[in-house]
Amino acid sequence: MALRVMALRIMPLRIMPLRIMPLRIMPLRIPGPFKKKLTSARVARLATMDGRSPYLVPVCFAFDGKHIYTAIDKKPKKSRVKELQRVRNIRVNPQVALILDEYDEDWSKLWYMLVRGPADLIKDSERDRSRAIQLLRRKYPQYRMGLLADDSQVIRITPEKIVCWGKP
Amino acid sequence: MALRVMALRIMPLRIMPLRIMPLRIMPLRIPGPFKKKLTSARVARLATMDGRSPYLVPVCFAFDGKHIYTAIDKKPKKSRVKELQRVRNIRVNPQVALILDEYDEDWSKLWYMLVRGPADLIKDSERDRSRAIQLLRRKYPQYRMGLLADDSQVIRITPEKIVCWGKP
Repeated sequence: MALRVMALRIMPLRIMPLRIMPLRIMPLRIPGPFKKKLTSARVARLATMDGRSPYLVPVCFAFDGKHIYTAIDKKPKKSRVKELQRVRNIRVNPQVALILDEYDEDWSKLWYMLVRGPADLIKDSERDRSRAIQLLRRKYPQYRMGLLADDSQVIRITPEKIVCWGKP
Repeated sequence: MALRVMALRIMPLRIMPLRIMPLRIMPLRIPGPFKKKLTSARVARLATMDGRSPYLVPVCFAFDGKHIYTAIDKKPKKSRVKELQRVRNIRVNPQVALILDEYDEDWSKLWYMLVRGPADLIKDSERDRSRAIQLLRRKYPQYRMGLLADDSQVIRITPEKIVCWGKP
């Protein structure tokens, strides 16, 4: 069984003197099959943390080649207070982890992709937010059918480190 | 769509004067369908954290009615150093979160079960460890076929808070 481990640390934005080199964000170098999963996978699990312990929730998400977006939708996940725990956690500590994987009884087919980095809550004023909502609606017919309001809160994850394991 | 939210906080061990009442650990009151999933589900996702950020990994696990066990098996998850990150994290901060869920395009069928509590590494000398390995081998034929050594490291999770959502 081939062991494939790839830890990609995304280089921080390099601040170079103007006129010498334009600002450049390093592109995510994600292997093809994993990149495909990042676009096509229907569910991921998102870990956030409060001061003392981790918190987990399954999420729908969309990837635009640079950021991962997930929204607080109208699925009645929990009571109002609990519903916002991931949001409260991100406010306290923006570092999150997101995992994509699929289980198979043939363990040679197992794979996962772990994305780590900071998350932020897209503000009302940002154009990014309606673009993210558009992306999510394009991916999920359920969102197009009214389960995602125009004013939904959107969490934007900036992948800083990606670990790919196995062969999806 | 019925909304079912159940947050069960397991009562801490009650220390009562001897001869008045024996020590008693409150049993986990998990609704039937969720309890069944805790026994039958083939995969869960485990979140641990280092000092600054959460870490996630898919895990195979077994439940004995009180604790959840997961082992560091022979699946070449990652490089030697990386393989132990969940273990290193637990040593730094024993608080973990474990989630069980299944995705379905019919969102009225979505459910999840979030377990939170401390984890510890079963020591070599403990009888619990060989019992946990036995449990895991009973559940997974892959483990019976040699993918779980007798001296595998076993993580024991003590559920303190369980949130059940949806209808599995």
